[in-house]
Amino acid sequence: MKNRITQLFNIKYPIALGGMAGVTDARLAAAVSEAGGLGTIAAATESAESLATEIRRLRDITKLPFAVNIPLMAPQAKDLIQVVMESMVPVVITAAGSPAVFTAALKQAGSRVMHVIPCVDAAKKAEGAGVDAVIAEGFESGGFASPFEIGTLALIPLVVDAVRIPVLAAGGVVDARGYAACRILGAEGISVGTAFLATVECTKIGSAWREQILSGRDVSTKILARGIAPVRMLANRWAEELEKLISAGVTKKEIMNFIFSGDPMSSEDGPFACGQGVGLIQRIRTVKEIMEDFVTGSEELLKRMATGD
Amino acid sequence: MKNRITQLFNIKYPIALGGMAGVTDARLAAAVSEAGGLGTIAAATESAESLATEIRRLRDITKLPFAVNIPLMAPQAKDLIQVVMESMVPVVITAAGSPAVFTAALKQAGSRVMHVIPCVDAAKKAEGAGVDAVIAEGFESGGFASPFEIGTLALIPLVVDAVRIPVLAAGGVVDARGYAACRILGAEGISVGTAFLATVECTKIGSAWREQILSGRDVSTKILARGIAPVRMLANRWAEELEKLISAGVTKKEIMNFIFSGDPMSSEDGPFACGQGVGLIQRIRTVKEIMEDFVTGSEELLKRMATGD
Repeated sequence: MKNRITQLFNIKYPIALGGMAGVTDARLAAAVSEAGGLGTIAAATESAESLATEIRRLRDITKLPFAVNIPLMAPQAKDLIQVVMESMVPVVITAAGSPAVFTAALKQAGSRVMHVIPCVDAAKKAEGAGVDAVIAEGFESGGFASPFEIGTLALIPLVVDAVRIPVLAAGGVVDARGYAACRILGAEGISVGTAFLATVECTKIGSAWREQILSGRDVSTKILARGIAPVRMLANRWAEELEKLISAGVTKKEIMNFIFSGDPMSSEDGPFACGQGVGLIQRIRTVKEIMEDFVTGSEELLKRMATGD
Repeated sequence: MKNRITQLFNIKYPIALGGMAGVTDARLAAAVSEAGGLGTIAAATESAESLATEIRRLRDITKLPFAVNIPLMAPQAKDLIQVVMESMVPVVITAAGSPAVFTAALKQAGSRVMHVIPCVDAAKKAEGAGVDAVIAEGFESGGFASPFEIGTLALIPLVVDAVRIPVLAAGGVVDARGYAACRILGAEGISVGTAFLATVECTKIGSAWREQILSGRDVSTKILARGIAPVRMLANRWAEELEKLISAGVTKKEIMNFIFSGDPMSSEDGPFACGQGVGLIQRIRTVKEIMEDFVTGSEELLKRMATGD
């Protein structure tokens, strides 16, 4: 298929890997790009040096386009921006901060720029700042969460109506049904996190995280630290500990310390980010299998619905 | 179109009016039934006598099938069940309680029964209790909210995979895009509340509620009284008052009193239930116009997507 997203990023399918801090490394990102999508290296927990290394590692695996995700509120954000400009990264995804600061410079350096937004106003601001596309991230999404808490089904058409640039949908999209539904809602692509965690190529999560994804159900995730530093995580013992700390009234600093000192490679429980669609994930597959399911599954589904079968 | 829902309820389109306490009266329900959907009288705030009157009023306007919605935790629930059985109401929608208690009796009395559910387990229990269909209500939905907070996009495919009975989708569905997306996700119909509030035939809401719907945006609703009696309402001054009360640490009884003593006909602010799709509603239309948009709009959309136009 061809649309504005595939043309903008020169990719086969408008399906991006959602940047997940410490998890979406060169290997996983390269696998998504090789499968026809847009692989994303998450820079949130990288230094300038380690990000540069990841970018080189990815380019050793694939010559195809890829993205780097940079949360603009990260203390080292400026250094990371410097790296992606020097490395001529094809697509830069910015999040959690103002897109007004770096977008022009990034575009001048030759990158396409996408910004992650949780509501209509942020989408308009990003468009005003000159980004090429927005990723509209709904309430169902795993990891850092927006206080606006707008469900993906409501958010996508509202954002699509409000901007002229193309919109990618994120939050709760784990299979062909979710992908097709988001296209119907007006999204020209999707950004997928949780589904790509349960892949052969995802080596940065521990066995406990993986198992909790495979056994996860509709009620297995939770927004934690609401009003402080909201994140959607698996509702495990680590999450209970965090909630106890919060109920005990400790400082925000202690809460942040607890969140960031958790071990995602933990063999038992830890801070395991996860989206609300986790219940639809049954087994570990390859990135290619998931991508094929998205692409052929959604085409079949749309054809079947249109003919009323 | 024909599917299990249209056949089950003997209606033209699988589109139900969501029961809204004090709002979806005989007139609005009859208008939805006359337009080919399933109109719903909300019984939550009715006595046995006033419900019987509403049912007669509806039958004076239309001979078509309709539903009555009964929250099973209402103190007068048993009396309301008695009324719908004596009145041979075609469809009874139960909510907020166990479907195990009345489903068999209602079916024996000749009614079809649907139960509103917020998660997969509840859907399975309802199926086990013998209901004919479930309404899967996602996080985006207005009014009383579930603590599970599962977004509609994630909830529908999970419920569809878990039960054999047909599933109606609710929560954030206000236009043809939402309807078509829910069909893609596997729902065989939808239950729509907020969109039908903004109609000529909806006479039970005050001008302030109506105006706040028309000016509502993506961030205009909020879940209030989380952990106490969660409801999604328009985030107006009344909502601020409620939140102040809660912050002040008053008793649950006082909170409930504040909620239930609010005036929905208020000319300024009040407890105005509203779903998260409100930003897509631009003007007052007739029920028939909305129904036609759902039906023809979704067909066109699905055809266009399938042919890649």
